[in-house]
Amino acid sequence: MTASARKVTVLNQLGHDVLSSLRGVKVLDAGRDRAWERMQEADVLLTAPRSGWHGAPREKPPGWPGQLRWIHLASVGMDYFPRWLFDDVQVSCSRGVAAGPIADYVLSALLEQSLGLNARQVKNASDWGRESARVFSQPMAVLRNQRLGIVGYGAIGKAVAHRAKAFGMQVQALRRTQQLSPSHADDGTEYASSLQALLGSSDHVVLALPLTEASRHLLNADAFAHCKPGMHLVNVARGGLVKQEALRQALDSGLLAAATLDVTEPEPLPEKHWLYSHPKIRLTPHISWAAGDVQARIGSKFAENLQRYRNALPLLDLVDLSRGY
Amino acid sequence: MTASARKVTVLNQLGHDVLSSLRGVKVLDAGRDRAWERMQEADVLLTAPRSGWHGAPREKPPGWPGQLRWIHLASVGMDYFPRWLFDDVQVSCSRGVAAGPIADYVLSALLEQSLGLNARQVKNASDWGRESARVFSQPMAVLRNQRLGIVGYGAIGKAVAHRAKAFGMQVQALRRTQQLSPSHADDGTEYASSLQALLGSSDHVVLALPLTEASRHLLNADAFAHCKPGMHLVNVARGGLVKQEALRQALDSGLLAAATLDVTEPEPLPEKHWLYSHPKIRLTPHISWAAGDVQARIGSKFAENLQRYRNALPLLDLVDLSRGY
Repeated sequence: MTASARKVTVLNQLGHDVLSSLRGVKVLDAGRDRAWERMQEADVLLTAPRSGWHGAPREKPPGWPGQLRWIHLASVGMDYFPRWLFDDVQVSCSRGVAAGPIADYVLSALLEQSLGLNARQVKNASDWGRESARVFSQPMAVLRNQRLGIVGYGAIGKAVAHRAKAFGMQVQALRRTQQLSPSHADDGTEYASSLQALLGSSDHVVLALPLTEASRHLLNADAFAHCKPGMHLVNVARGGLVKQEALRQALDSGLLAAATLDVTEPEPLPEKHWLYSHPKIRLTPHISWAAGDVQARIGSKFAENLQRYRNALPLLDLVDLSRGY
Repeated sequence: MTASARKVTVLNQLGHDVLSSLRGVKVLDAGRDRAWERMQEADVLLTAPRSGWHGAPREKPPGWPGQLRWIHLASVGMDYFPRWLFDDVQVSCSRGVAAGPIADYVLSALLEQSLGLNARQVKNASDWGRESARVFSQPMAVLRNQRLGIVGYGAIGKAVAHRAKAFGMQVQALRRTQQLSPSHADDGTEYASSLQALLGSSDHVVLALPLTEASRHLLNADAFAHCKPGMHLVNVARGGLVKQEALRQALDSGLLAAATLDVTEPEPLPEKHWLYSHPKIRLTPHISWAAGDVQARIGSKFAENLQRYRNALPLLDLVDLSRGY
């Protein structure tokens, strides 16, 4: 840090320990406060999708952004936040921080769907007899040679692909910007020609793209109609990417074999929602990002950007507001 | 096949479809017959650990091996069979056929132990609240940087290592013959200096070695005393490698976090055996080999060897009776 580094006050809506290693910075712990009411107190806002943004005003508060010059998001997606939050400030995100944890989650889901070891566990001698016979009547599938389609091919998609290839899976991906490199990604992964082509030729499809106006309800009834019969859908991105009633019909018609969902619309799901009890759904409460040292990695990424900010250097991982991620 | 290829009769104890593609060979389907009573009927015996060998005589039957010249095992291990079965015949095995399926099983077990997604599934709104909070109090672990120790580094061990490395795991292995290459295997995997060193520095230990007189009860109380606290044991090889009472003590003392067992001693386990109900045990009934097209691959391997046999060429994957695998 140079001698001329700016003095900075950070309004922190993450856990206190995320910023415990910062020196020479004033930190205001804001918990789940209404951050916009404190816009005059700090230069920087560090926030997350869970910090009470559901109750934010629809219209930009008068005087916004106050003293704030930079907002860093603990998430990658911008979809939880009101649009005015990003007016007249720099916005950076925690791109890539949770890619490893989320990829581990996805592979666990692919293996459970293929091998089904959870249901094959035995608790008594009669289970033993039944399950040792069932591997012949209902065989387990290896991942080798199964086709994996990944929609959205950023840090998460690539981390999934890297693991899946080690199992011998055949991986294809779809990316908004793939026209820059029409046939293959830089890691050799083949690009699908369209969403329909990917859905029609994948045994498992993983959603790993941002939720924007363009991607909302990307998987609707039309899209599901193109799916390869027996497909397994994994959503680790945002619930709003999937039209849930269309998913239900695709499951109930037998077209889709199963869905593993870490995200839903809304979150949390209301009591008695059908997703809680559907036999072909595996549901977790938006936790796939949370494994390992992800909190520390968010802190490190913010700290690196903070040092750049104090020295008036360009920030890393700025969000492109026009594309929405 | 040359014009001079031998005429051959095969006594087949696998499913009929395993040999359905063979031409010019007489196949006698023997199911779970007492194969030794039909030793005068065939040149070749194709058999498996499950085909009634528990009831075989302890002593070699008079006249053994009759007309038999070659025995092919659908397994890799020889430990299910009476020793006299291998007297005065060539013995080949299905080495490598199930390595992929077993490696998928192992990775599913490592991910379940680390992420615990099975227990984190939600079935109602109160589950959602509890599980979305529990990721902070009982964090999920990523595989990245966890240490995996593999005991026995043949086809199965290498298939496990290949997958595990794609998750960023640190892999070490132990092999009986590693003195030929003291520090690293040909795939770059580091060799541990001893079983004790491997156990003391591994978060997960996978048993992937044959059961022989030398390896019986390899994991006994002495070995468990060297384990890294919190270790997870995965046994996909043979139940007899583990002294089960010592395992129970290591689990109950809190030294071991969990064990995933696809094999036990005996199989099947008798009703009310403690392994069925121990809360730290995940138990499956010796099914890890059975995923995918493994039956077809056993058939292909046998067919290739059969063609060599008929042309008097050396057989592949012969068992070394002196080392026991």
